[in-house]
Amino acid sequence: MPGFINAHTHVGMSLFRNYSDDVELMDWLNNKIWPLEDKLTEKDVYWASLLSQSEMIMTGTTTFADMYYYEDQTIKALEKSKMRAQISRGLTLEDENYLKIKENIDLYQKYENSQDGRINIALGPHAVYTTDKNYLKEISKVSKKYNMPIHIHLSETKIENDDCIKRFGQSPTEVFEECGIFENKTIAAHGVHLSDRDLEILSKYDVSVVHNPSSNLKLSSGFLDCTRVINKGINLAMGTDSSASNNNLSMLKEISIASLVSKYKDPKNLRAYDVLKMATINGAKALGIDKETGSLEEGKLADIILIDLNNPNHTPQNNLISSLSYSTFDTDVSYVIINGELVYDNKKFVNLDIEEIMKNSKLAFDNLRKRK
Amino acid sequence: MPGFINAHTHVGMSLFRNYSDDVELMDWLNNKIWPLEDKLTEKDVYWASLLSQSEMIMTGTTTFADMYYYEDQTIKALEKSKMRAQISRGLTLEDENYLKIKENIDLYQKYENSQDGRINIALGPHAVYTTDKNYLKEISKVSKKYNMPIHIHLSETKIENDDCIKRFGQSPTEVFEECGIFENKTIAAHGVHLSDRDLEILSKYDVSVVHNPSSNLKLSSGFLDCTRVINKGINLAMGTDSSASNNNLSMLKEISIASLVSKYKDPKNLRAYDVLKMATINGAKALGIDKETGSLEEGKLADIILIDLNNPNHTPQNNLISSLSYSTFDTDVSYVIINGELVYDNKKFVNLDIEEIMKNSKLAFDNLRKRK
Repeated sequence: MPGFINAHTHVGMSLFRNYSDDVELMDWLNNKIWPLEDKLTEKDVYWASLLSQSEMIMTGTTTFADMYYYEDQTIKALEKSKMRAQISRGLTLEDENYLKIKENIDLYQKYENSQDGRINIALGPHAVYTTDKNYLKEISKVSKKYNMPIHIHLSETKIENDDCIKRFGQSPTEVFEECGIFENKTIAAHGVHLSDRDLEILSKYDVSVVHNPSSNLKLSSGFLDCTRVINKGINLAMGTDSSASNNNLSMLKEISIASLVSKYKDPKNLRAYDVLKMATINGAKALGIDKETGSLEEGKLADIILIDLNNPNHTPQNNLISSLSYSTFDTDVSYVIINGELVYDNKKFVNLDIEEIMKNSKLAFDNLRKRK
Repeated sequence: MPGFINAHTHVGMSLFRNYSDDVELMDWLNNKIWPLEDKLTEKDVYWASLLSQSEMIMTGTTTFADMYYYEDQTIKALEKSKMRAQISRGLTLEDENYLKIKENIDLYQKYENSQDGRINIALGPHAVYTTDKNYLKEISKVSKKYNMPIHIHLSETKIENDDCIKRFGQSPTEVFEECGIFENKTIAAHGVHLSDRDLEILSKYDVSVVHNPSSNLKLSSGFLDCTRVINKGINLAMGTDSSASNNNLSMLKEISIASLVSKYKDPKNLRAYDVLKMATINGAKALGIDKETGSLEEGKLADIILIDLNNPNHTPQNNLISSLSYSTFDTDVSYVIINGELVYDNKKFVNLDIEEIMKNSKLAFDNLRKRK
C-alpha cells in the first residue's frame, strides 16, 4: 500500500518521550517541555530526528510534515533516513529582528527541493497564542514572495480559543484569515475546537486540517469530530504529533484510534477506508504533493510499504481494508520503499545504524538533563 | 512484568475477524454474526481457539476469561497453548431441558482445576436480553451448589437497558441482583451504561466489571467512565472482547486506548499505572486467582512476560510505566512464561505450530462460508 504520511509532527522532540505524562497541554508546555527545550542543542535535535525517523520508517511512514527548530539538523538526518519531508521552522514572537523568519527563508533557499526533490520547506508560524497580528502578516508576506506553504497549530485547546477571543474578539481561524495566512497553502494541525464559521473559512481557503487523536486525548485537548470536518468538504489528514505527547510515532495506532473513537455515536463514522485515506492521500494533498505520492498509481513516485499479513492477527483474511485499519500491529510493516529506494528490508534498516542512533539518543538525553 | 489477563473474550469467534465492520451491535449480532454461528462446527471452534490463543500469547496475554460454546474444544486447544483460562458456556434461553446448563456443569465436573490447575470453569448466563428471570434463578442455584463463578454481559448498550426497563421495570443490574446472580462471584463485561444505583449494587456484591474499550467504541455502544467505576470501589479489569468486534486480541492496544480516551476530560484520569493494573492484577481479582497470579511476587505462580525495550519506540527510557502504556508496540513482547513454562521464546512459539494453525483457520472459514 502507499506509505503513511504523518502530516503533523515534531521529530526533534523524541528525547522527551515519556518525560512528562498525564498532565494538561499548558502545564506540560510551560513547566515540563519548554524548560527542557531551552537547553536543547543542535546535536540533540540531530539524534532525536534520526530516532524519530527510524520509528516512523519501521511503522510504515514514508513522508512527514515537521515544525521545530534546528531544522537543518533534521534535514541532515533526512540525508541518512531518505524519508520525504516538509520542514518548517517554528516561528514564535520572541523573534528579534525577525531572525527566526530569516532562518526559515534561509532553509528554503538552501534546501527547497533538495535531496532528489524529497525536501520541501514551509513557514511555521506556531500558533495564535505565540504570535501577534503584525508577525503573522509579515509571515504571510514572506509566504507569498517565495511561494512557501504554511504549517500552523490551530484551535488545539478550548483555552487557546477563549484567550484568543479575549485578546482579539476573534477566533484563531478568524485571526489567521485576517492576517492573510490562508491565502497561502496551509496545513492546520489539531482543529479540535472549530466553530461552523471557522470551518466555512477553512473550506473557502482550502486549508487542510490534521487530526492528531492520541495527542489530543492524552493532553485532554478534546477530540476532533472528523465526520463534521469531512462533511464540510475540508481535506482531513492525520498526524502523530510528537512522541513527547503521544508517546510514539506509529500512524497505525492513530488510524485505529481515530476510527474507533469517531464511531462513538455512529459505527458508520470514519469507516476503515476513510481513515486509510486520511493517513495517505489526504496527507499528500495537505502537503501539496498528491501528484507525486499518497497513492499507488502509474506515474507517481514509489513511496510504498509492504505489510505482512501472514500472522494470527490477519487470519483469516476476510477484508483487507478492515484488516489494515483494525487488525494490523505497529510492526507488521516488513518493507519500506521511499522515492523508489528500499530503506527497510525485511524489518532491517538499510541505511540507518539503529543501535548507534539509540545509543546516542540516550546519551544526548542524559547530558541534556544534567546541563545547567 | 506480569502477563496480561484478558478478562472478557470469545476465542471461538476469531474466524469472523473483519467479516462485518462499521455496523451497530444488534445489527452485527442479528444479521451478521448469529447466522454464521449457526453453521459453526466443533472443529471450527478448535482452530479459532488456537488462533486466538496464538495471538494472545504473542501480545503478552497469559490468562483469559472466555464465554462461548463448544468450550471443550477451547479446553482442548489450551492443552497445546498452555494458557491459563476461566471457561464458561454461554447460556441463553433457547435451552430445552436446560441442556446448556447441564453442559456447563459437565464442563465443571470434567475440567475444573485440570491441566495443572490452569483451567477453571464458570457459568455463562449471556445477558439479560437472552435470558429470563427463571433461567437466571436456576443458574444462580447451580452456581451456589457447585461454587462456580459467573461471567455475564451487563449494560453493554443503551438499547439493552431500555428494553430491560420496558420488560421488567428494572435495570439489567437490578434483574441480576433479584435473581441472586451476584451472590456468587461474578464478572460483568462492558458495564457501559450503569446508573449510580447499579454501581452501588455491583459494589455491594463485589462484582468485577470488565472494560472492553475497542469493542464498545467500534460497535458504538459507548465508552465506560472508568474513573467513576473505580471511585465506587469496584474492581475494574480489562478485556479485548472477541476479534470479531475489535478486531484483534492485543491487550496492549486496549491499554493505550483505555488510558487515552479516559483522559478526554482530565489528563490525570486512568494514569499509566492504573491502566496496567486493570490489565493484570485487577483481572486476576476478577477471576478469583489473585493469590496465584496477576503480579510478580514471591510465592505466586510464574505468569511472566518480557518486553523488549531495545527499540526506537522505547528510546530514551524516561519512565518505564509510561513507556509500557503509551509507547509499547503490540509485538514488543519477546518471551512469555505461563505457570513456570516458557511458551514463547524470542518471538517463536514453543508448543504451537503457527503455520498449521493459520492454514487450518483459513480453511475452516472458507468451508464455513460455503456450508448451507
